[in-house]
Amino acid sequence: MKKIQVNDCEEVLLSMGQIIENLNEVIDKLDKEAIKAMLQKTMDGDKVFVMGAGRSGLVARAFAMRLMHLGFSVYVVGETTTPAVRPQDVVIAISGSGQTRSIADLGKIVKDIGSTLITVTSKKDSTLGRISDIVVILPSKTKNDSEEGGYLERHLRGDYTHMPPLGTSFEIASLVFLDSIIAQLITLTGASEAELKSRHTNIE
Amino acid sequence: MKKIQVNDCEEVLLSMGQIIENLNEVIDKLDKEAIKAMLQKTMDGDKVFVMGAGRSGLVARAFAMRLMHLGFSVYVVGETTTPAVRPQDVVIAISGSGQTRSIADLGKIVKDIGSTLITVTSKKDSTLGRISDIVVILPSKTKNDSEEGGYLERHLRGDYTHMPPLGTSFEIASLVFLDSIIAQLITLTGASEAELKSRHTNIE
Amino acid sequence: MKKIQVNDCEEVLLSMGQIIENLNEVIDKLDKEAIKAMLQKTMDGDKVFVMGAGRSGLVARAFAMRLMHLGFSVYVVGETTTPAVRPQDVVIAISGSGQTRSIADLGKIVKDIGSTLITVTSKKDSTLGRISDIVVILPSKTKNDSEEGGYLERHLRGDYTHMPPLGTSFEIASLVFLDSIIAQLITLTGASEAELKSRHTNIE
Amino acid sequence: MKKIQVNDCEEVLLSMGQIIENLNEVIDKLDKEAIKAMLQKTMDGDKVFVMGAGRSGLVARAFAMRLMHLGFSVYVVGETTTPAVRPQDVVIAISGSGQTRSIADLGKIVKDIGSTLITVTSKKDSTLGRISDIVVILPSKTKNDSEEGGYLERHLRGDYTHMPPLGTSFEIASLVFLDSIIAQLITLTGASEAELKSRHTNIE
Repeated sequence: MKKIQVNDCEEVLLSMGQIIENLNEVIDKLDKEAIKAMLQKTMDGDKVFVMGAGRSGLVARAFAMRLMHLGFSVYVVGETTTPAVRPQDVVIAISGSGQTRSIADLGKIVKDIGSTLITVTSKKDSTLGRISDIVVILPSKTKNDSEEGGYLERHLRGDYTHMPPLGTSFEIASLVFLDSIIAQLITLTGASEAELKSRHTNIE
Repeated sequence: MKKIQVNDCEEVLLSMGQIIENLNEVIDKLDKEAIKAMLQKTMDGDKVFVMGAGRSGLVARAFAMRLMHLGFSVYVVGETTTPAVRPQDVVIAISGSGQTRSIADLGKIVKDIGSTLITVTSKKDSTLGRISDIVVILPSKTKNDSEEGGYLERHLRGDYTHMPPLGTSFEIASLVFLDSIIAQLITLTGASEAELKSRHTNIE
Repeated sequence: MKKIQVNDCEEVLLSMGQIIENLNEVIDKLDKEAIKAMLQKTMDGDKVFVMGAGRSGLVARAFAMRLMHLGFSVYVVGETTTPAVRPQDVVIAISGSGQTRSIADLGKIVKDIGSTLITVTSKKDSTLGRISDIVVILPSKTKNDSEEGGYLERHLRGDYTHMPPLGTSFEIASLVFLDSIIAQLITLTGASEAELKSRHTNIE
Repeated sequence: MKKIQVNDCEEVLLSMGQIIENLNEVIDKLDKEAIKAMLQKTMDGDKVFVMGAGRSGLVARAFAMRLMHLGFSVYVVGETTTPAVRPQDVVIAISGSGQTRSIADLGKIVKDIGSTLITVTSKKDSTLGRISDIVVILPSKTKNDSEEGGYLERHLRGDYTHMPPLGTSFEIASLVFLDSIIAQLITLTGASEAELKSRHTNIE
């Protein structure tokens, strides 16, 4: 069995530093108009639905949980008691590639229903990027970024070191971005920390 | 209906910056011996189980998904086909407060079984902190941090601005930390990006 | 590899027959006063929460999905956007043994909050049976029914043949019972099939 | 607020009787060759995957949980640590209509991969019915059975009384059928009740 060295722990810290560096790059490239539109539509919608596959789906749920704490009528697509989507609702899709098949298919249905579709993605030129009303681009590397070599290939070439694999940097960037959207929605709605806590599940 | 201003978007970016600043503080305070022990036990365990409640549970799942991509036999406590835990297994708990009732109760059962219990938390002096074999402390603010005032109270006092509420900074820090653990496990196991992709679900 | 015989298929049909026989026995022993009270409290409650562990939890979700189709404000304990329970809410627990640790613990919290607790179980003399406001007993065999021998032991003794294992008969009985509660709630609320369909998720 | 009458409880029991009557009809019409093939392929497959949407998905999970107790390598499509499907694996789809869009789409991917696809449905002449290697027909009414009138419409016409709505009878029939498949797999694998219990989750 492999014996872990102190050096291995150093590299964990270096990876964390690399993730932070990537986050800083994302902030520099964010489109303020898209953020403004996303805040407006999220506040104006009747119900809010979130969706995503895999780890992006987990980020979508983390966002939905906070929206619930804030008092929004919010649902995760695919959960047990999620009702039908109506034209006056807002659907927020999280997809690094913007092409995840099941989510892109659902995005088309959302547009057929006539609801507002917001996509958080790293690829504007993608299925979801093209059909959405609002697209927030987080310019992270995604798991299909093969044209420039995956992170590990670049890792081996020495270009980038200590980078987590596949869509990791998008997933982290989207969580940080969406939690900052929450922070601003708190300011906008005037919700107090006590109100948020009062809605937090009391049977877990 | 409230009209969103450009200023609101600026504040979203400021919140992101605040989260990054918090992440930098976490890196400075990490205990390398705990990380070393966590890497060793995770690699030496038979099966790996992860658990967490609420948003910490979502972070636990995001970690589990990557461990599966890496070829680990990994299960999320509470999912459909998760088998019984055995003494030779490793259970990793994610809990900001270290006191979340359901997870602390499960932690005690894990210790009764005789399995290895690893907790990622922001509070060493907590139920899970006291009973775990390995405790990785991410010194973030948690939702029970009332002694110093919640984020919003401090926000209003002007001490900290643009901070997301409740346990947000722990949840983000734990995701960034665990994804960096993944990056190092990739190096340690010699897994290639192609191998990871081959295990990624092909029916989503 | 084992070759399946026609005889094996016959035995599948015999098992189905045995399950039906068990369901008939359950109907004969149901307490109408408990059903009446359950219908009344479910209709009078503000929000309805359902909870259960393992396969009983899946039955609880199937019930919750139909309550949503009927227009109830209904939540599954443990799902992403489930809010806090309030005194004016009703919590319905499904537990064959009435003792499942996590559900019994949550039941105690529900009673501390002051909400109405309804338990569907096969054991009146159990933790949940004792603390609940309403207890509906489905007198099925449960997985802890060791005093009389598990199904398979009895199977081997020839007392009962073709019985599915562990808590299966309770789980099936509770699904059939709860779907019949739904049928009556439809009559009581005057909901039309078209209304039910209109609430059924349109993005799956 | 509506006052529940004793009569309402009688009708709950009548609905249960109606469900049982429907189950008896299903047993009479089952195709033994399909059951035989399903048992054979399930035992011969490498890994077993189950999938379904909505309440059919909950039935699929209840089946998967028991397969895990029996020692099968079994996964639920869409759960966190579910790996990629390979040609030597078996995928079991549960779909009343055989047309549920997301499940039918995944069924096509399964066939492209070259895995064995088994569908439990009430409609042979459906997307999944046509592309599957094995189709087990449970001739229950489904939620799209509009040509003959939904249950409630017939209820109002007096043709059928006390029937639960939408796909209920298929969902119950599929649970009863799959639990009987489990009973026979127990006989075929010689698993003891004690072995099943030993795999049952010990941290819930």
